[in-house]
Amino acid sequence: MKAAILTIGDELLIGQVVDTNSSWMAQQLNLVGIKVEEKIGVGDDASVIKEALSRLLNKVDFVLITGGLGPTKDDITKSTLTEFFQDKLVLHEGSLENVKRIFATIGREPNAVNIQQAMQPSKALVFVNQNGTASGMCFDVDGKMVVSMPGVPFEMKAMLLNQVLPMALKRFRKIDIIHKTICAQGIGETYVAEKIADIEASLPDYIKLAYLPSVGLLRLRLSGYGAASRQEVDDYSNQIVERISAHVFGFGDDILQDVLGQLLIQQGKSISTAESCTGGYIGHLLTSVPGSSQYYLGGTIAYSNEVKVKQLGVNKQDLEKFGAVSKEVVEQMAIGVLKNTGSDYAIATSGIAGPTGGSVEKPLGLVWIALAGKSGIFSKDFKFGDNRERNIQRAALTALNLLRKELLKK
Amino acid sequence: MKAAILTIGDELLIGQVVDTNSSWMAQQLNLVGIKVEEKIGVGDDASVIKEALSRLLNKVDFVLITGGLGPTKDDITKSTLTEFFQDKLVLHEGSLENVKRIFATIGREPNAVNIQQAMQPSKALVFVNQNGTASGMCFDVDGKMVVSMPGVPFEMKAMLLNQVLPMALKRFRKIDIIHKTICAQGIGETYVAEKIADIEASLPDYIKLAYLPSVGLLRLRLSGYGAASRQEVDDYSNQIVERISAHVFGFGDDILQDVLGQLLIQQGKSISTAESCTGGYIGHLLTSVPGSSQYYLGGTIAYSNEVKVKQLGVNKQDLEKFGAVSKEVVEQMAIGVLKNTGSDYAIATSGIAGPTGGSVEKPLGLVWIALAGKSGIFSKDFKFGDNRERNIQRAALTALNLLRKELLKK
Repeated sequence: MKAAILTIGDELLIGQVVDTNSSWMAQQLNLVGIKVEEKIGVGDDASVIKEALSRLLNKVDFVLITGGLGPTKDDITKSTLTEFFQDKLVLHEGSLENVKRIFATIGREPNAVNIQQAMQPSKALVFVNQNGTASGMCFDVDGKMVVSMPGVPFEMKAMLLNQVLPMALKRFRKIDIIHKTICAQGIGETYVAEKIADIEASLPDYIKLAYLPSVGLLRLRLSGYGAASRQEVDDYSNQIVERISAHVFGFGDDILQDVLGQLLIQQGKSISTAESCTGGYIGHLLTSVPGSSQYYLGGTIAYSNEVKVKQLGVNKQDLEKFGAVSKEVVEQMAIGVLKNTGSDYAIATSGIAGPTGGSVEKPLGLVWIALAGKSGIFSKDFKFGDNRERNIQRAALTALNLLRKELLKK
Repeated sequence: MKAAILTIGDELLIGQVVDTNSSWMAQQLNLVGIKVEEKIGVGDDASVIKEALSRLLNKVDFVLITGGLGPTKDDITKSTLTEFFQDKLVLHEGSLENVKRIFATIGREPNAVNIQQAMQPSKALVFVNQNGTASGMCFDVDGKMVVSMPGVPFEMKAMLLNQVLPMALKRFRKIDIIHKTICAQGIGETYVAEKIADIEASLPDYIKLAYLPSVGLLRLRLSGYGAASRQEVDDYSNQIVERISAHVFGFGDDILQDVLGQLLIQQGKSISTAESCTGGYIGHLLTSVPGSSQYYLGGTIAYSNEVKVKQLGVNKQDLEKFGAVSKEVVEQMAIGVLKNTGSDYAIATSGIAGPTGGSVEKPLGLVWIALAGKSGIFSKDFKFGDNRERNIQRAALTALNLLRKELLKK
């Protein structure tokens, strides 16, 4: 079963937008054993789109298109596909209801342009878009399928996972690929590669290991080809986890702040935060989890020294003597927010995120993290890099993982 | 002058790596007036690569290839191009010296595999790689150019900017493309399309308008073909801005929190935040800007009601009577943090981010935002959607834009 991905939009060809859709789609297709032969990006030009589509249909069985389904004039994918398949547009009731539903949630009436979104090719199977007004569509012709989806990433993702892939898997025979992903925090890929070199060397041909690093996180994906490899994939996964267990927080799609939240709920504990260099990002990660109000009380963003002193009770003399980025200050920040909120645990951060502000004694990327609980306090300094955004992300994830490990000691 | 970008590598087709190279390259080409007609990604397969190349050479004058130039067996780009152009590999002295130089910096001798990197096609112009052992190459045949570069982003970038583009610009006459991008907040693309329908209809053939929406933001890009269109692009841009001026916060690559920060610096004003439903995300956006400590003092993440009362002085009776998501409470939050920090302005948010917690009176997506200053307070309710992540983002951006507009009134 061969597939191709066709992305449509001038913005991709002038480099205004980085195409993250096609790699995500390729990943999802790969997970279910559909091989992507080619990815191609073209502009909003009907003849170019038709030419690309003709060529791809000669090579593959399944063409996935994204982009160009919006309501504005520059979006021509729907009309071009309708012409290509010698079809015509008719009103699609499900799409019309959806447009009305979406506008109802914002208390407005759809206008004529919005209603146009409900016109769909008569021969196509239509996918109603849960998250927007642009429906997707599938033309199923001569044993080949052409699916068109919106280019907005979250709309496309929901449509692919919930509607397109289930349909495609029914339609095409698939081979089994067993995946197991280990999720780790605070560990680099070269360090892991050294630690598990012997395990990696012993992997059979039909089991592959991929390193998937992102800022502050590392995922390790084992892929076994053929259903019979399941037990072996599990065994290798266990071997790897054993070597790096202090850093492993989950498997598959686990997210650190979710895993931490579940632990807090299980133990009936609450937390609060006092953030300087992370500037609210820890609070944001915690509250990005639905239901986080069960354990997260809130806290203080103590960006200025005055707020550290006044809101968190940091000692002014200590602040002057040791500086804001110090063990003394970060511990007092944690104790202060613990007292203010009455939470069971508190996390505090203070560091030099950059790009400037470093010194020989306190270099750029130095971050102090404190963890306070009713039974005591712990703090540690970390040396991250020279990029502001990444320093903030790494500090926040490191802090969350410190608390996760603390909770596991109970 | 038409160009195409061909990326080579299996890792791109299984979605393991997001291809950031091709959008960056497209951007650079576009800046110098070279139009990218197509981007295509294929696997490490000689016949597929040759087929793609033949096809592209029928369409465009300039093909830029990245990837597949490494020393390991899976890298076949160099040998495939050599075959395609009926050439042979010969030792290239400059490349050999470069391989030796690079190994000298790490105190090692190159082995036989590394030395192979110095073999280059005899007919090609060779680009010695300043940052790695894989040289780039250019075949110049029948008035068309095919350039192959390494896939490692920083190696490719240096080679393209310092060696490939200067050569290409000498070789091809270029057309000018004038871009102007308008950045707006709190406005949907269909709404804008209606508002500016007459302007859009009046655009000449050589000026295009694209709508680039993202969560809470909308960018509008005007592209004029030919240097003579500059004045007209500016005129159309002014006409559009006039229609939606309340929402426009900048141009080009402007970022809302940067624009706001610049205004605060200019006016010598400071701000603080009191966040409930946005959970620290406003603080995060503000502190993502280097130098934000000049105007952002910090604030309170008041996720629980207890923190609202104890840290921000929200009246307990009002909280019970009106609920946390109310005009009364959000205004008291803003006043509380203003008092706590002594800032000139304060932003407060309280809402139902979802996915649950809505009611008929207070539906999912309802967010109250308050803006307090020394001269008074203002608050407004917004109705966003049903997605937690997007509600948080939209609420935060809306709050920042409210403050920006307030500052402009001065």
